[in-house]
Amino acid sequence: MKGYTHIYTGNGKGKTTAALGLALRAMGHGRKICMIQFLKRDENYGEYRFLKDKIDFYQFGSGDFINDDGPSDNDIMLARQAYEQAVQSVQSGRYDIVILDEIIVAFMMGLLDEKAVLMLMKMKAQDTELIMTGRGATEKMIESADLVTEMKEVKHYYKKGITAREGIEY
Amino acid sequence: MKGYTHIYTGNGKGKTTAALGLALRAMGHGRKICMIQFLKRDENYGEYRFLKDKIDFYQFGSGDFINDDGPSDNDIMLARQAYEQAVQSVQSGRYDIVILDEIIVAFMMGLLDEKAVLMLMKMKAQDTELIMTGRGATEKMIESADLVTEMKEVKHYYKKGITAREGIEY
Repeated sequence: MKGYTHIYTGNGKGKTTAALGLALRAMGHGRKICMIQFLKRDENYGEYRFLKDKIDFYQFGSGDFINDDGPSDNDIMLARQAYEQAVQSVQSGRYDIVILDEIIVAFMMGLLDEKAVLMLMKMKAQDTELIMTGRGATEKMIESADLVTEMKEVKHYYKKGITAREGIEY
Repeated sequence: MKGYTHIYTGNGKGKTTAALGLALRAMGHGRKICMIQFLKRDENYGEYRFLKDKIDFYQFGSGDFINDDGPSDNDIMLARQAYEQAVQSVQSGRYDIVILDEIIVAFMMGLLDEKAVLMLMKMKAQDTELIMTGRGATEKMIESADLVTEMKEVKHYYKKGITAREGIEY
């Protein structure tokens, strides 16, 4: 089955969860999935705890937020490693779905250039469905993808001071 | 932990999958989940196959699309049953998360009235997170919810003639 490229972007909640939902649905049909999280490392994430034994799951992040001084050398190195894993996974043809979570944020932070992101769409194995998430998709990314949804924040409870909760935000 | 109400609406892909992703993440933390699908009945859905033994999962639908003549008596009866199950599940306090998938579409089709949808947000147990999906959320629904994301279609491959695929769309 020919695979397509999806982008889930925008400032609203639901981008990573939409990718996870696709993974869940595909698992229901016995499909093979790879998830690569850019900028994240936390084994306590619900998705990591649930999926680590069921799919090929990689996290590349320092575990810290990138501070105002910009990315550290370590952040740059981890993004490079994540990208290398992404190249390998999308090209391999071993997966029905490859999810590159927050790859577009990695681009926004200057950790990857636009060309590198576009390249992945071109080099992916024909039968692999490629899912990219993160706010900040560019015109060229949208042009190159087959399906793009903007998750638009209409209302968010963090404005009421509610912070990230286990089991909901992570 | 106090629970909130989310609405995922709009015309783009990613509403049901975002709800499924929340379920997956919450399962990673051992939370208890109930999913009620309005208007859908198909045991071959990936989400049904994957989740049926892991959570309380209900499908209420005739299995057919509602045709141009409007909903049949059977559609109306099934929507009523789904709503009764929804009332019971959100009130029970037994669940960390209750997902009411496509409930807003059921409203759009005249199978439920707005008041009935709003009531669920009011009557839910305090600690239950309530997730509603479907295009067509009204101003009042948005007002009553704590978090609302509009999934906006930027680009969709069905315009290229690609129809629903097992493992991706269902």
